[in-house]
Amino acid sequence: MSDARPTGLTYKDAGVDIDAGERLVDRIKPLAASTRTPHVLGGVGGFAGLCALPSDIEDPILVSGTDGVGTKLKVAFLADRHDTVGIDLVAMCVNDVLTIGAQPLFFLDYFATGKLDVDRGAAVVAGIAEGCRQSGCALLGGETAELPGFYADGEYDLAGFAVGVVGRGAILDGSAVREGDVLLGLTSSGLHSNGYSLARRALLEHAGLALDATPEGLDEPLVDAMLRPTRIYARAVKAALAAGGVRALCHVTGGGIPGNLPRVLPAGLGAHIAHDWPEPPIFALIRSAGDVAESEMRRTFNLGIGLVIVAAPESSEALRAALEAEGEQVFELGRVVASAAEGEARVTYAADEAR
Amino acid sequence: MSDARPTGLTYKDAGVDIDAGERLVDRIKPLAASTRTPHVLGGVGGFAGLCALPSDIEDPILVSGTDGVGTKLKVAFLADRHDTVGIDLVAMCVNDVLTIGAQPLFFLDYFATGKLDVDRGAAVVAGIAEGCRQSGCALLGGETAELPGFYADGEYDLAGFAVGVVGRGAILDGSAVREGDVLLGLTSSGLHSNGYSLARRALLEHAGLALDATPEGLDEPLVDAMLRPTRIYARAVKAALAAGGVRALCHVTGGGIPGNLPRVLPAGLGAHIAHDWPEPPIFALIRSAGDVAESEMRRTFNLGIGLVIVAAPESSEALRAALEAEGEQVFELGRVVASAAEGEARVTYAADEAR
Repeated sequence: MSDARPTGLTYKDAGVDIDAGERLVDRIKPLAASTRTPHVLGGVGGFAGLCALPSDIEDPILVSGTDGVGTKLKVAFLADRHDTVGIDLVAMCVNDVLTIGAQPLFFLDYFATGKLDVDRGAAVVAGIAEGCRQSGCALLGGETAELPGFYADGEYDLAGFAVGVVGRGAILDGSAVREGDVLLGLTSSGLHSNGYSLARRALLEHAGLALDATPEGLDEPLVDAMLRPTRIYARAVKAALAAGGVRALCHVTGGGIPGNLPRVLPAGLGAHIAHDWPEPPIFALIRSAGDVAESEMRRTFNLGIGLVIVAAPESSEALRAALEAEGEQVFELGRVVASAAEGEARVTYAADEAR
Repeated sequence: MSDARPTGLTYKDAGVDIDAGERLVDRIKPLAASTRTPHVLGGVGGFAGLCALPSDIEDPILVSGTDGVGTKLKVAFLADRHDTVGIDLVAMCVNDVLTIGAQPLFFLDYFATGKLDVDRGAAVVAGIAEGCRQSGCALLGGETAELPGFYADGEYDLAGFAVGVVGRGAILDGSAVREGDVLLGLTSSGLHSNGYSLARRALLEHAGLALDATPEGLDEPLVDAMLRPTRIYARAVKAALAAGGVRALCHVTGGGIPGNLPRVLPAGLGAHIAHDWPEPPIFALIRSAGDVAESEMRRTFNLGIGLVIVAAPESSEALRAALEAEGEQVFELGRVVASAAEGEARVTYAADEAR
């Protein structure tokens, strides 16, 4: 045969471009290296990543969580902006791990797409590396999966996995929470990575807003508000734990405060939200665009509070001062109260009683 | 309003069914419980999973890997059979972790779909739990992501994440490999989870074979051969390490023996494959259906050997006996040789010289 193309079928014919994968690996290497911590062994490569434990943790317990970015990715696709969703990915996993009182150690990512675009993949991983640096954890490994026919052109999915470590005696499991404990809220940066199916439906479909327009009530284009990266609370949690008095930590993720705070409250206790806090304006926009009921807003979005610290009353002022010294804005939300309710009903709002 | 449907937009309207997610969580709980090991702390729930370290490992080093199942999932979709791809998912991650000499500790999964089908999700997780039991590791957590508009109806993607532990002095990093070492191969169960884009193209498109038919050369329907779960080598590796003489372990994953064995060979060494072994018949079918060149077959598929043990010559017979006592079929593939070549060329085949 004089035809330059071989007659036999090859792996590349079947839609998998190994060379593109290798070019991406070359782009990832310096990104991963930028996240390296003293605990990491060896270079990137081999069949698995290796990480030692910090030597100062007594009876170390591993803490692990996995998450994705959800349909926030659809906004990244629409805007063709891929360098921040990796921060969201790390944040969603690491903020969960932090709630146990653990120190993040390492992170791995799974990036799946139909046809690998090396620049887009590198932008995604650059965001992941940024999230790892913000968390103080190493990007220990990852998988790039080219899956022809799984994803629409230009789209992809992301999954992340974080591992941290905590001394057995320092585990926060909610059992230390007492009636009268103070609920301190740390601000979110906006939507974080939850409720995007509802947010997109309300803003882009019902209200027909354009991503690059600046709607009334926002002081920036909608796309900037919708793609703002999820805050990572690693430094704040470290400062809070050092200050003392932390009884529990709650990541306000899917389900909002009513869906998450009960996860760290012992049976017979609830939370009473007595105060308001300044809400990022994107939430009011969603509320009005979708005519969304307040109860639905609360159980879908963080509404401006990304992490709740349950604090011993006698420690709460010192804790607040330590967090503010770290640059955090802290709002006292309310108190832990006795409650005979179940599930979301364990969280009550003073605002409802006033109506 | 007397309309039973609220006027405002809800999260469920936006395509996310929280109740279905909760029904799936109820189905997952007993599956995860069935994988529980003495190292796991607490129940499933909370923000993250907790796992202690075995107490008998000196200077413990964590070993972690992530992978997916790739386009083998497309065969599961076509066949509407979802209870074994979870085994593949665990296998792909755990077999990587084993190559470092590590003992698997725990696993987390990410399951993403467009519209959550509780039965299908439960079947997938049942497979994951089976894989965890075969690996001796706990299913410590997972994420079910319902992403409207990301996946075709009835389709999904899976990512997995495994963590194991090894004593610092017992790490296998290839540096112990010497010229003359013996290459022992452990059989694969068939395709495992690599090369499915090529396999599907050759078998289902080029040859037009039906999944439920039994093609000449196979003694079972094509679908059974294509969905056979990836073998998990946890018990075999444990037996091999106990027997002694293991210099390196190579998981024959994407890239085949030429793509993977060089990853554990020091510079200046290569591998000479001197002997044949019985190849599962699915490979001959692919070779002829796609007219696939032998070099392409070798760099895409495992061709019947799923794990290569690089053994000290003086230990190889005892090692083989220990593996056979564990029920493994062991084939001597060849030897480690001096090599000035780079990359895949470091692996040579006696069969090529004979031509």
